[in-house]
Amino acid sequence: RIMRPDDANIAGNVHGGTILKMIEEAGAIISTRHCNSQAGEPCVAALARVERTDFLSPMCIGEVANVSAEITYTSRHSVEVQVNVMSENILTGAKKVTNKATLWYVPLSLKNVNKVLEVPPIQYARKEQEDEGKKRYEEQKLDRLETKQRNGDMILPVINPEPHTVGYSQSSLIHLVGPSDCTLLGFVHGGVTMKLMDEVAGIVAARHCKTNIVTASVDAINFHEKIKKGCVITVSGRMTFTSNKSMEIEVFVDADPFVDEPRERYRAVSAFFTYVSLSKEGKPLPVPQLLTETEDEKRRFEEGKGRYLQTKAKRQAQMQQAAQQ
Amino acid sequence: RIMRPDDANIAGNVHGGTILKMIEEAGAIISTRHCNSQAGEPCVAALARVERTDFLSPMCIGEVANVSAEITYTSRHSVEVQVNVMSENILTGAKKVTNKATLWYVPLSLKNVNKVLEVPPIQYARKEQEDEGKKRYEEQKLDRLETKQRNGDMILPVINPEPHTVGYSQSSLIHLVGPSDCTLLGFVHGGVTMKLMDEVAGIVAARHCKTNIVTASVDAINFHEKIKKGCVITVSGRMTFTSNKSMEIEVFVDADPFVDEPRERYRAVSAFFTYVSLSKEGKPLPVPQLLTETEDEKRRFEEGKGRYLQTKAKRQAQMQQAAQQ
Amino acid sequence: RIMRPDDANIAGNVHGGTILKMIEEAGAIISTRHCNSQAGEPCVAALARVERTDFLSPMCIGEVANVSAEITYTSRHSVEVQVNVMSENILTGAKKVTNKATLWYVPLSLKNVNKVLEVPPIQYARKEQEDEGKKRYEEQKLDRLETKQRNGDMILPVINPEPHTVGYSQSSLIHLVGPSDCTLLGFVHGGVTMKLMDEVAGIVAARHCKTNIVTASVDAINFHEKIKKGCVITVSGRMTFTSNKSMEIEVFVDADPFVDEPRERYRAVSAFFTYVSLSKEGKPLPVPQLLTETEDEKRRFEEGKGRYLQTKAKRQAQMQQAAQQ
Repeated sequence: RIMRPDDANIAGNVHGGTILKMIEEAGAIISTRHCNSQAGEPCVAALARVERTDFLSPMCIGEVANVSAEITYTSRHSVEVQVNVMSENILTGAKKVTNKATLWYVPLSLKNVNKVLEVPPIQYARKEQEDEGKKRYEEQKLDRLETKQRNGDMILPVINPEPHTVGYSQSSLIHLVGPSDCTLLGFVHGGVTMKLMDEVAGIVAARHCKTNIVTASVDAINFHEKIKKGCVITVSGRMTFTSNKSMEIEVFVDADPFVDEPRERYRAVSAFFTYVSLSKEGKPLPVPQLLTETEDEKRRFEEGKGRYLQTKAKRQAQMQQAAQQ
Repeated sequence: RIMRPDDANIAGNVHGGTILKMIEEAGAIISTRHCNSQAGEPCVAALARVERTDFLSPMCIGEVANVSAEITYTSRHSVEVQVNVMSENILTGAKKVTNKATLWYVPLSLKNVNKVLEVPPIQYARKEQEDEGKKRYEEQKLDRLETKQRNGDMILPVINPEPHTVGYSQSSLIHLVGPSDCTLLGFVHGGVTMKLMDEVAGIVAARHCKTNIVTASVDAINFHEKIKKGCVITVSGRMTFTSNKSMEIEVFVDADPFVDEPRERYRAVSAFFTYVSLSKEGKPLPVPQLLTETEDEKRRFEEGKGRYLQTKAKRQAQMQQAAQQ
Repeated sequence: RIMRPDDANIAGNVHGGTILKMIEEAGAIISTRHCNSQAGEPCVAALARVERTDFLSPMCIGEVANVSAEITYTSRHSVEVQVNVMSENILTGAKKVTNKATLWYVPLSLKNVNKVLEVPPIQYARKEQEDEGKKRYEEQKLDRLETKQRNGDMILPVINPEPHTVGYSQSSLIHLVGPSDCTLLGFVHGGVTMKLMDEVAGIVAARHCKTNIVTASVDAINFHEKIKKGCVITVSGRMTFTSNKSMEIEVFVDADPFVDEPRERYRAVSAFFTYVSLSKEGKPLPVPQLLTETEDEKRRFEEGKGRYLQTKAKRQAQMQQAAQQ
């Protein structure tokens, strides 16, 4: 579809969140279709996880987004979908790859939302494809188990914070979950959640560096808990790390099922977003260093640095590999 | 994309206007891409005309709309696009053709919005395709010239109208044209206009028969005049004719460029929409007859009857032709 | 959240209606949460009244709106919420108070929408807070009773009106109430209604003075009647009074529960909006005087003048008080 002014920031760059939402809609369609392709209980595919996603080049207002999706692996209860986004300038004909994302879905029964159904297996062209898929499946399963334990943290307000401290840029928004946000099962689309997360992360980044910012990447996101229609969700973000030219922001989503539900507020999702600051010509700008004050902030900064160095090392390894081929 | 509660009426049927908007977006993308495919002045394709469109089967919430578009003819200054819409139930896998629409676009220069550019010619697989396209081109050109003269009519208000009279159900809305409604040139997308027209026509139909109603068809619509960002548009509808099971509604769009513009209010578009009333099981219901009071209302009723009988005859001829093949 | 192009007029000023909608959403969330804080029948808080609200400074595209809400009084069956809106320019860090609003909510049972539940009492820091709250409660109760009687008036159409007459700028829109407009109980959010009212009032104001206009204030609004999903609502506005630099517009909301409901069209809400006209530099411009023709128009003009002078006197008294402290 054509990118409109409301999809973009004031500099005309389309929000990463808009793209994440399109990606998730494509993934939900293809995996729901696949899981219902054999006679059996009807189901809706629910997003369980998005792998780390890089935003390779910014998309602009007036460009057309072409989204294509393909199922690349199936386990007994889950589907791996690869989604590619190309931006096309229909005036010049120029096309660019904007994103490649990998998503995991789980089929939930339409009749009983707590029942996970079996996934019809796909055919692989080559045996290695199945093996590689299985490896990816095991890896993400481990990572999901691990993140299930964390999540206890809260973002507390700070009074009169100094510029460039964590408290200075931290932000949160609340959103009442309406019918348009939800699937047939009455649960929030993963894409809707990711769009709100990107919105908050973007505000944190802009408050910190006071320039035009764009999403550079999103770390793997695990969706442990469903969010029901009528909930109020609180999306909070705080900066955890800055390198010379990037900012890492941690975002939490807490759901408050405050009507008709005995349940307490709970952490539904959390993730790390990385942003860069761009000049008017679209060049990356230096970012003011994050000032850490408390022990926790210093620890999170070091952890963020670890993730940053790890990603950088991985990228360099890939580039060397590509150069050697 | 997946149809959401907001795209549909309370019975779950997707509004015809939502479908018309998707059709027009697909047409605008393919024709803008084509018109910019050769080096030359960059341009945006503007909707000039939509041919009569039948809604073959209703689409429902949760279904996925698959929209495909193809360029079928090019004249020197216009492009004919055929758009097909299929609805897909991703739970059962069932697919149905929902719409087939034909649209005409004209490329306007990005630098000078009043300059119509030349269209790169397409290649035809067979000579007959070009000849048939040329015939369609000449026919629509004639029709556009004809409607350019009409259009002077206004919908006048009625005080305390009786049920089932024209005055009883006539309706109008105003809409302030915002950035998301517009193309890169700052003019309203044809699809946005059609969605508003369907909204008003649907309210007229519902007020008349007080049941669940759906769009059955839209007569050819000509877009003579562009509508600029910041205009207020008034969309008005009145019932012109009822058969046993259908209602015809005439809809006008008037634009009021009231800020910073010396121009008076003008008629931008007009069209006839046909609606049917559906029972809870989706069966067509009888429609209360329209009570005409003034001479003009009686004349319009007869004209509507003429269009109704003509369409019916055409459809029967097509069915006989199909039966003989 | 960040203000987007669609939230604003062509000069970049955010519509008052967008702000009113955010205020009401915050009020609905905090009061629904409070009313469900004790074990008991689950409920949804419905907006009963908004006190007079001034728009202290315009908000612009790209700014972030910070909305905070606090419960300031509870009676047996109602909750008073104070909502503050700050606009923040995240590039410069500049913050301004945009609005302070007071809203009254009533908890309706989720099981039986006509049953008003009891409100858990709040604790007051000082006894005077409770007394002042009680006084505000009694005052608004009186005012609500009073307006329940009025409301019979209709906006009648005028043919070929002269510029600057009442008939020249009067406007109305119809809107089909969709799922996204509604609470869990299936009734329209008060904030959605107020946004539509501001839209119509803004068009009336712009038609009158043909310049860029912004909302300056809204008089107290009482929500006597709920509006159900599937209704068609007609929102109509007419100018009642002009001072040198402001315009007062009266807005009516009528609901038409026309499908599957035996009920006749009824007046759901009415209110007075005040607008000012701004130059390109954001300075208030003189407003053409409203030409009144009929006796009713002259009477309404005098009543509007009364409200205008009363508000002006109140404001001067407050300023003197502030100066003396």
